[in-house]
Amino acid sequence: MTLTLTLDALTDRIVAILRRAGLNEVQAAALGGVIAAGERDGCKSHGIYRIEGVLRTLKAGKVDGAALPVLAEDDGRAIIRVEARRGFSTPAFDLGLPLLAARARELGLAAMVVNDCTHFSALWPEVEAVTAEGLAALVMCPSYASVAPTGGTRPLLGTNPLAFGWPRPAGHPYVFDFATSVAARGELELKRRAGEALPEGWAIDAEGRPTTDPEAGLAGAMLPFGGHKGSAIGTMIELLAGVMIGDLTSPEVLEQLGTTALAPFHGELVIALSPEAFARGRPGDPFARAELLFGAITGQGARLPSQRRFAARAKAEAEGVTLTPAEAAQLDRMLELGLDAVA
Amino acid sequence: MTLTLTLDALTDRIVAILRRAGLNEVQAAALGGVIAAGERDGCKSHGIYRIEGVLRTLKAGKVDGAALPVLAEDDGRAIIRVEARRGFSTPAFDLGLPLLAARARELGLAAMVVNDCTHFSALWPEVEAVTAEGLAALVMCPSYASVAPTGGTRPLLGTNPLAFGWPRPAGHPYVFDFATSVAARGELELKRRAGEALPEGWAIDAEGRPTTDPEAGLAGAMLPFGGHKGSAIGTMIELLAGVMIGDLTSPEVLEQLGTTALAPFHGELVIALSPEAFARGRPGDPFARAELLFGAITGQGARLPSQRRFAARAKAEAEGVTLTPAEAAQLDRMLELGLDAVA
Repeated sequence: MTLTLTLDALTDRIVAILRRAGLNEVQAAALGGVIAAGERDGCKSHGIYRIEGVLRTLKAGKVDGAALPVLAEDDGRAIIRVEARRGFSTPAFDLGLPLLAARARELGLAAMVVNDCTHFSALWPEVEAVTAEGLAALVMCPSYASVAPTGGTRPLLGTNPLAFGWPRPAGHPYVFDFATSVAARGELELKRRAGEALPEGWAIDAEGRPTTDPEAGLAGAMLPFGGHKGSAIGTMIELLAGVMIGDLTSPEVLEQLGTTALAPFHGELVIALSPEAFARGRPGDPFARAELLFGAITGQGARLPSQRRFAARAKAEAEGVTLTPAEAAQLDRMLELGLDAVA
Repeated sequence: MTLTLTLDALTDRIVAILRRAGLNEVQAAALGGVIAAGERDGCKSHGIYRIEGVLRTLKAGKVDGAALPVLAEDDGRAIIRVEARRGFSTPAFDLGLPLLAARARELGLAAMVVNDCTHFSALWPEVEAVTAEGLAALVMCPSYASVAPTGGTRPLLGTNPLAFGWPRPAGHPYVFDFATSVAARGELELKRRAGEALPEGWAIDAEGRPTTDPEAGLAGAMLPFGGHKGSAIGTMIELLAGVMIGDLTSPEVLEQLGTTALAPFHGELVIALSPEAFARGRPGDPFARAELLFGAITGQGARLPSQRRFAARAKAEAEGVTLTPAEAAQLDRMLELGLDAVA
């Protein structure tokens, strides 16, 4: 039987599962929020599907469910640093956000560095949290080596997501959040299960040759989106959100983790910019002018990113979230068995 | 007869032409530097070829060759603003760079906004100037409406270049600088002249239909690189380096300029980040760790961006720059006739 839950009820159930599995209140509350948000927005790949991965990563001892993130001493400069202390990224981000927002408003722009975190969530919840402060956001992180640089033959870069947001006075912000690989690893996996060929340009095999065989692609490497341009952006993300912030790069993550089956351990970079500060003294209101641009985009039939997600959200907020019988049973099972529910 | 000049002699000749055409010393020196650098690096599209465009834009009264850029009052925050005062972008950038670098070192990151400038240069000279300060750089600007957003039918976004640099202790920095359109307008023009078809995915015609006819593509719109992802990045650049900084977006540029044949008038955003400040207190030296990443990229046969440019530079520095007889004659002609050399 399908199960329909309000968002609050869904969140409570996820938090209860995470608490049962051993996460402390801070970790469980933060993760419960983003996992419920993924389900709410119809992002099945970042919804309750992720709970199992959280539990497996916890069971493998790769994340500290008892961690309390700590804000590094504030030196008044533009870098806000949060030590996740081997916990998940989300509670660390939540801890640093108020200071990041205050500092970006004060200085015009500021950055939050999250160090030593396990990361499994999409970046859009964080982008949206920054835009809710009236600030633009640029967020990026590495993942683990699974993408070959253009012209290369082996996995080196991560799928390295890049996300951006711009606050809109009415309604949802402008938000994009995408992998800098042409496809996500999960999409290759789905093709494999469906017995379908990969589109050309998605992957190379273990010998570095282009392949449309999902099996061969999964054993080889994925390719960056947009050819050498996407490859360069993926490399930039390794540099800024790995090397520069003193945290792991994607090849280092894979080496430490030893598998792509658990949530990766690395850092994250969030840059917040104040449109009000940047536009000060210049003609026009930046928020009103942005709306003209968005209107020109949708006015010619193009879509703004994230619209499908926002539509799913509206539906979920009105009608609740409906889980399949298998999903509902899996939640019950995880609540009952805790870490014994996963291998 | 071909003409081979040392870099200094080439720069002097370009500066003399620009002075003859009416640019003041500040504008001529800054532009002479970047035009000579383009020629030196084998970027013919940003070398002496550009002088004619500079002269035409000047002759059309669209740029003020007598402008002196002004640094806005420093409030001690993270935004450095330079008013180009309707001059070219380059001297404004040069004026703001020392303060940008000092502020990025002090705060960890800082931004330079250049407002009200005419822009024709590549972004890599500015990226390299920031990396020479030991800082990472992210630089972007709009251009004029010539690219349709993905799913759209008409020109709206510009070719909106995105450039990034990372300082390397030995040798040239890691630098990329590319249009967020799949191809540059000049590449479509070259295909038209050669009577060749466009690759699929480069352009749409005036009715918004995919086309491989260069003529139809030039009358229609170019497409973003990497599909919806490149389209989103191009939109981000309109927002950050147009709307946010209180300067023109690409559709506004085209509306004001009325043509794509002159250099566009808009603003520019430069973000400088201090790897030393970001990595402070964390394990490992960011510059040494970045070298490991670069080594892993080149070690599997992939190239770092800008290598062709750096190779051309080494050759030019050793052997000088050789101009074709037509190029040498055109320089002579522009030096003799000033603005009368162009239509």
